Amino acid sequence: MTRPVAGRSDRGPAASDATGTDLGSVGEFGVIDLVTAGMTQPASTLLGPGDDAAVVSSPDGRVVVSVDMLVDGVHFRSDWATPEQIGRRAALASLSDIAAMGAVPTALVVAISAPAATPVDVLTGIAAGLQAVAAEVGAGVVGGDMTRSEQLTISVTVMGDLQGAAPVLRSGAKVGDNLAIAGRIGWAAAGLAVLSRGFRSPAVAVAAYRVPEPPLAAGIAAAAAGATSMIDVSDGLLADLGHISTASGVSIDVRTIALDVNPRLKEVASALGKDALAWVLTGGDDHALVATFPAGTTLPAPWQVIGSVGAGSGVTVDGRPYEGPTGWDHYR
Amino acid sequence: MTRPVAGRSDRGPAASDATGTDLGSVGEFGVIDLVTAGMTQPASTLLGPGDDAAVVSSPDGRVVVSVDMLVDGVHFRSDWATPEQIGRRAALASLSDIAAMGAVPTALVVAISAPAATPVDVLTGIAAGLQAVAAEVGAGVVGGDMTRSEQLTISVTVMGDLQGAAPVLRSGAKVGDNLAIAGRIGWAAAGLAVLSRGFRSPAVAVAAYRVPEPPLAAGIAAAAAGATSMIDVSDGLLADLGHISTASGVSIDVRTIALDVNPRLKEVASALGKDALAWVLTGGDDHALVATFPAGTTLPAPWQVIGSVGAGSGVTVDGRPYEGPTGWDHYR
Repeated sequence: MTRPVAGRSDRGPAASDATGTDLGSVGEFGVIDLVTAGMTQPASTLLGPGDDAAVVSSPDGRVVVSVDMLVDGVHFRSDWATPEQIGRRAALASLSDIAAMGAVPTALVVAISAPAATPVDVLTGIAAGLQAVAAEVGAGVVGGDMTRSEQLTISVTVMGDLQGAAPVLRSGAKVGDNLAIAGRIGWAAAGLAVLSRGFRSPAVAVAAYRVPEPPLAAGIAAAAAGATSMIDVSDGLLADLGHISTASGVSIDVRTIALDVNPRLKEVASALGKDALAWVLTGGDDHALVATFPAGTTLPAPWQVIGSVGAGSGVTVDGRPYEGPTGWDHYR
Repeated sequence: MTRPVAGRSDRGPAASDATGTDLGSVGEFGVIDLVTAGMTQPASTLLGPGDDAAVVSSPDGRVVVSVDMLVDGVHFRSDWATPEQIGRRAALASLSDIAAMGAVPTALVVAISAPAATPVDVLTGIAAGLQAVAAEVGAGVVGGDMTRSEQLTISVTVMGDLQGAAPVLRSGAKVGDNLAIAGRIGWAAAGLAVLSRGFRSPAVAVAAYRVPEPPLAAGIAAAAAGATSMIDVSDGLLADLGHISTASGVSIDVRTIALDVNPRLKEVASALGKDALAWVLTGGDDHALVATFPAGTTLPAPWQVIGSVGAGSGVTVDGRPYEGPTGWDHYR
């Protein structure tokens, strides 16, 4: 725990009195008491929240670790999603990175900052979303930090266990491999476009933007099936394939006929004057997984071949360079 | 990595062109390239930055993990310290929590958000401070995330290895134990008071506030010597002893004659019309360690007995309740 430059020393009221109040009146420790109350832990959590640090089992002797930071107004808008949805999204964005290594998630540690005027219900809602996702995947929310700031900010660190397997890197794609995908893409971009126009439907697109559905188990299945490389599609399919292409020193071609653009997605795009294929190729935030497999590999469900790996460099679509923006950079 | 609601897709210029520009012009990936360039890793880092997640060795089969989030204007002021000092402080605040468990730090993952107008030099300076501290303790900065926000915010997650030992908890203090301290306290509070008045000296106090000097090795030594409980003094001695008292179900008495208030600290307090003993008892941010040991334990250097553990509850000073604020709460 770190101490602020300016603050006051008195503790907040008991946690049970805090409903309906804001962080400023309940205090940091009061909120921490609230969000950790009733939290359950899996067997891998040897020591949960409440001490200087947590202790997590790592039977493999190696720990996989990744962090993602989400900022209100940058990665999400607190007026476009419920606190629980925001918590779910924060957890899933980090969990997806662990899945992309072929690892099983074991523990999350969460740091949250928020304005003092933030209702306590917002914090407990975010914590509930994080905790629900963690429980669904068998991981524990083992520790955290909470402080005040001008913008609601959530940093989620996830740890995972490789269970004896080699991590699946971005650098292992080989010429002749098949390119495959697990999970949907384009839907979150559609949801963002819908919300940006002030609409709230179709629900399937809005829901996809609010809470991704990363195919976490597919990452472990891909590793077991012999995936040579894998990445989480967070910045957009072509942008993230670019990372595999660069790290592996190969070219990658995506076949649009294999992408199976959903008719409903086309309807949404048409209604908004947008291009559904562009959403699929460049939309981020869906947290699908893409991986490469040696030709002839029998792919586990729900993996589907969508392209191939060749010699050279760069990412092409149906054999040609893609015209248009391919992904996102937070500062540009 | 997570994608922002709004952004642009073009990549920044090559890292080597970025000196003197701001984050907005260099871009997220450009900054990440800059801060990871030339970064070295210890043997425990099996896979460093650059993939979806890092892989760290955890030979003990258990991982100790803790997170701290520091916000500009709340935990530090970017006009009161250099970027490298801010990076050092962020790393040390988290490392201190690992030391307080009796563990050896192995890896740090760092998430940073900053306004687009932040000079790139600020980011590379913070990264240099983090990396320098990590190298000093033999840990690796193995991963991170970077995004934009309105306030410079740094979230540092640290992992550690217990090397076969039991973690030293807050809950193990026993009636009859001695209370001991390693590291200095009161100095950071003095530095904050000096800086708040617009002064920049005495240097020893200002330096203590800018960059703490947690006695990290003393945590491991305490565990080996049989410490029954331990905590990092981040919120203030009495406040943090309150956590041990509550968790262990014991009372704790601090003997002020044993606290050895430095004459220089008294001079600073006197010049500012403050009370040096109050700084020592309630000042935060020094990240000293306090621990309890069975009576008769030969304490390893630099541990010094400063009090005792008794039956009952609560924390007293020279046998009496302390009059005045005892610590800090971020929201109050």
